[in-house]
Amino acid sequence: MPGPLTAVDFYFDFSSPYSYFASEWIEALAARHGRTVRWKAILLGVTFQAAELRSPVSYPIKREYTLHDFERSARFAGVPYTLPDPFPIATQNAARLFWWLADTRPAAAAPWARHCLRAYFTRNVNLSDAASLKALAAEFGIDAGEAEAVWTSPEAKARLRQVCDEAVAHGVFGAPFFVVEGEPFWGNDRRAQIERWLEGGSFQATAHTDL
Amino acid sequence: MPGPLTAVDFYFDFSSPYSYFASEWIEALAARHGRTVRWKAILLGVTFQAAELRSPVSYPIKREYTLHDFERSARFAGVPYTLPDPFPIATQNAARLFWWLADTRPAAAAPWARHCLRAYFTRNVNLSDAASLKALAAEFGIDAGEAEAVWTSPEAKARLRQVCDEAVAHGVFGAPFFVVEGEPFWGNDRRAQIERWLEGGSFQATAHTDL
Repeated sequence: MPGPLTAVDFYFDFSSPYSYFASEWIEALAARHGRTVRWKAILLGVTFQAAELRSPVSYPIKREYTLHDFERSARFAGVPYTLPDPFPIATQNAARLFWWLADTRPAAAAPWARHCLRAYFTRNVNLSDAASLKALAAEFGIDAGEAEAVWTSPEAKARLRQVCDEAVAHGVFGAPFFVVEGEPFWGNDRRAQIERWLEGGSFQATAHTDL
Repeated sequence: MPGPLTAVDFYFDFSSPYSYFASEWIEALAARHGRTVRWKAILLGVTFQAAELRSPVSYPIKREYTLHDFERSARFAGVPYTLPDPFPIATQNAARLFWWLADTRPAAAAPWARHCLRAYFTRNVNLSDAASLKALAAEFGIDAGEAEAVWTSPEAKARLRQVCDEAVAHGVFGAPFFVVEGEPFWGNDRRAQIERWLEGGSFQATAHTDL
């Protein structure tokens, strides 16, 4: 049975604004409760397909609201954000580099994730463009040629496929998605519930005394 | 241009657990900021169809998570809740009674809404069953025969249709859905953003100093 200091699993996609917002608070929240975070780059396209879902921005009416909510939620959290163009994008190359780092230089994986998310959502760096991603890798301290060799390798492709399959097997159907001791939380807006869960209380309301 | 005390529009469906949770906090939240609430019963089926959406519980993998999240979100908010059976249900009759009250005894409309939501989500009273709904109406002080005459009347049907059409025209695609001075908020989990909005601040984060 997992002990009280189990890591928080944090599933994210590099093209998901709500994942980006969550990436800016999850480490501090976990640390406040003595937890570490296991970052897990996935492809939303794979989980959507497995769950027969589509992106909220693929629906005509919901799209307009969602684009507005991205921007408002960023202001609400105090996180810099600009809707990138193009959006959304394919993120498998950034994700393959993430897992390559996780396997070879674990301490660099989460910083690479934050580097990419911030680049895409604040500087409009197109992570799906090979030249842009190579430049971003170089900026981060990864040799550009090596980066491209990694993301085109069969090993990196298989690794990401395996991770996405495992995520689907664990019931992950969107991003950000968090799992704490088997308890699943979907969405940037489950932050308060995750915090309450980590506090280890009875999860009975005491905060909402206005009810 | 609307003044600072514009009412908060609150769209809900009688078969939506998140609408029920929101119905338990929206009045107090609005009142804290000197606002009233305009309750608006709608049919989620109509807004889903207009927006080409489906209920979250209609998707195989998302369903399991969502049913769990209903229960957890209720505990988080300290609201009594039991998943009703059957769920979801058709809610047009309860909604027609709501609008009939709104038009003839406005002060009774929101209490009727709360009466129905609590009955369905805490006592498993099936609002789609004519006998159960008549008994619930009688309990509330509406003559059971009159209730049935209302919900089968062409006027009540037309009124609800009009309301749903207006909701769709205003961009409502789910429930609960809130509109404050033209600003749309979708979901029970936008409570903190609505509160911040009503505080009238700059909507720049000051609460999340841990970022």
